Amino acid sequence: MKIINTNQNSFKNDFETILQRAKSDIKGVSKIVENIIDEIVQDGNEALKRHIEKFDKWQVKNDDDLLIPQEDMKKAYDNLDLNLKKSLHTAFDRIKNYHEKQLPKSWIDFEDNGTILGQKVTPVDRAGLYIPGGKAAYPSSLLMNAIPALVAKVKEIIVCTPTPNNEVNELLLAACYLCKVSKVYKVGGASAIAAMAYGTKTIPKVDVITGPGNIFVATAKKMVFGEVNIDMIAGPSEIGVLADETANPRYVAFDLLSQAEHDEMASSILITTDDNLAKSVSVEVSNILKDLSRKDIAQKSIDERGAIIVASNITEAISLMNEIAPEHLEVMTKNPFELLPYIKHAGAIFLGENTPEPIGDYIAGPNHTLPTGSTAKFYSPLNVENFLKKSSIISFSKNAINELGEACALLADTEGLEAHAKSVRVRLENK
Amino acid sequence: MKIINTNQNSFKNDFETILQRAKSDIKGVSKIVENIIDEIVQDGNEALKRHIEKFDKWQVKNDDDLLIPQEDMKKAYDNLDLNLKKSLHTAFDRIKNYHEKQLPKSWIDFEDNGTILGQKVTPVDRAGLYIPGGKAAYPSSLLMNAIPALVAKVKEIIVCTPTPNNEVNELLLAACYLCKVSKVYKVGGASAIAAMAYGTKTIPKVDVITGPGNIFVATAKKMVFGEVNIDMIAGPSEIGVLADETANPRYVAFDLLSQAEHDEMASSILITTDDNLAKSVSVEVSNILKDLSRKDIAQKSIDERGAIIVASNITEAISLMNEIAPEHLEVMTKNPFELLPYIKHAGAIFLGENTPEPIGDYIAGPNHTLPTGSTAKFYSPLNVENFLKKSSIISFSKNAINELGEACALLADTEGLEAHAKSVRVRLENK
Repeated sequence: MKIINTNQNSFKNDFETILQRAKSDIKGVSKIVENIIDEIVQDGNEALKRHIEKFDKWQVKNDDDLLIPQEDMKKAYDNLDLNLKKSLHTAFDRIKNYHEKQLPKSWIDFEDNGTILGQKVTPVDRAGLYIPGGKAAYPSSLLMNAIPALVAKVKEIIVCTPTPNNEVNELLLAACYLCKVSKVYKVGGASAIAAMAYGTKTIPKVDVITGPGNIFVATAKKMVFGEVNIDMIAGPSEIGVLADETANPRYVAFDLLSQAEHDEMASSILITTDDNLAKSVSVEVSNILKDLSRKDIAQKSIDERGAIIVASNITEAISLMNEIAPEHLEVMTKNPFELLPYIKHAGAIFLGENTPEPIGDYIAGPNHTLPTGSTAKFYSPLNVENFLKKSSIISFSKNAINELGEACALLADTEGLEAHAKSVRVRLENK
Repeated sequence: MKIINTNQNSFKNDFETILQRAKSDIKGVSKIVENIIDEIVQDGNEALKRHIEKFDKWQVKNDDDLLIPQEDMKKAYDNLDLNLKKSLHTAFDRIKNYHEKQLPKSWIDFEDNGTILGQKVTPVDRAGLYIPGGKAAYPSSLLMNAIPALVAKVKEIIVCTPTPNNEVNELLLAACYLCKVSKVYKVGGASAIAAMAYGTKTIPKVDVITGPGNIFVATAKKMVFGEVNIDMIAGPSEIGVLADETANPRYVAFDLLSQAEHDEMASSILITTDDNLAKSVSVEVSNILKDLSRKDIAQKSIDERGAIIVASNITEAISLMNEIAPEHLEVMTKNPFELLPYIKHAGAIFLGENTPEPIGDYIAGPNHTLPTGSTAKFYSPLNVENFLKKSSIISFSKNAINELGEACALLADTEGLEAHAKSVRVRLENK
């Protein structure tokens, strides 16, 4: 891995390149995606069938073929290897437990003049989860998307997932059973997003669409935003590691590679205050890479998008990391908790050497759907609130409107909204 | 106003028309907006100057002209009429007080095996507020957008507002002073959204853009979503009133008209269980309309987008209202609080006859930036969380990874992610 030093002349340029990391080229595919969405809006199921035949290479004979039979989910769950079932349950329980802590409550508050103000929290009626299929079918993504919806008490959770050659991922189905998913449809890509946003004869219109996907899926999600809500627009995966001389170079190397193996576009960045650690990690990465099954992907990611930065001190290191705002941030320093107040922007923060990033992908509890490409500066991890919305509650008493009505009407006057002012003043006449 | 009855044969069609109410034609203007954004990205300030000359009809001589001098804000505040200043302060205090109740706290939680999980809440670094100018300059919108950002402790709040003929709204400036806005730029429309999303020499790139605007502004917000976060995509204003025989027809009529006067595209819908109330409200609306200063707008809105629906019972009335999911919902029934559990979808709920909708526009405390066009089914009112984001916190102890590591690695195995599994197992070697 290339090692760069913050006191090199070229550093500013090098760092700029790191910040400009892989952005999804939404503009490049937007015309294609727009056409796909238009087709679904116009032709519904018939368009879905055409797209499945084209992309997933199997023939849908009738509308019912789009839906995976309910009993297949239970069967997949019943047939699970016992060890795997146990692990899935552990993950399910821990993820559920964490997300329950996020659940906001409706609240109400009172004033002495009789005013009542509050906020009512309500789940959306129907959530649509997009879960990639085929080679990139990640059952863990199903847990991470369905459980927050389940905790939010969404009445109906549906899933769309592509099934190349009509083959379904059994572990994904088992996870759907565990998460009480209502319906699973064998539909993928931008077509699935359009179907859930606008509805077809078979697939119902949803209120919120969440879940990962390729550039076509991400672009479709952006395009239907407003028609439905979406979680975020995510790009390639990333890890940032903040480490001092106490870090174990082998651990750091494995963790960097656990992101690199995802995707050639993934980026893995170590920022350290220790020159020696930088060198040892670089050597370890090369050694471990040789034997990895996904070596080609990981090698390309490390070569083209990986970097080790040596900073003058921990303050500089943190400040650079805040600029990167990584999806995953590991802190392997002497006392990682001390640094927490200074870490401003990161999707998930992993503290200490016993917290490798994959722990957060599967089993820790927090969500693994996280903002990428510096969007941790404004997006949150997927969470229960993505499946809820709020309504303000306002109730004024006669006393309250008598006390505050004229101030309100005066502001309406200033904005030239006469009926606004009058609708208040008409209530003051009888005071 | 036209009165329709749920037991008429034509009702289903009539109601469908109501549901299909004014949608913003984002597709129709998207090419124009895309070009505006591209221009700003390429030419920065120079493009801004061209657009101001074209749309706001004044000439920007140098970059500094884009910025309203700091002292002008204080001057505007100092020069305010005393009564108006008092009203502005009352509104400010009440809005601030309500939004402080929304502020989420960072939290942390512990397990017996040494695991620490939590959620860190951080404000975004910089927020950009778009506030319409000229005739539609609403200082109340500044309060409603700036105060949640202020409560969220956003370090830098900037404002963009168009100034047709280089004229600035003084009350808007005074409100900016009160809300500690850092900078106000005389830039409007899609250009302003692009400038805040990408940054120019004068206008800094922000993390979140909120605020109302016309179809060009709404479309630009949708297009820059992902580059920055945005609040929502809003359309024309709406009110739904749910009333029984106890409601005062004059109050209902004024409240319907307070939405209708906003915009010809605004919609005002009364759903009542009482035939007599339907008739009296219809008469009152006609009477009040005659004398309104914004009569032409209100009349057109009422004629084309207003309706009174007579329902068979309150259950049916609520169910129809939930389908409409109105931006503003007034409940004027015998005991409005009893209905609250059944109301699922509404931006803000106004309970009882002393709570006219304009109370919520100016002075009650909750935000007046609310989801429109049925998007209350999935969007929340603008709130403090729009200016915050969260980071998950995960810390595993040696005990914790020993206990949970193998389950985690097994799930990684199943997904074919070898480096993920290894990065966990390498920590188990030394247990």
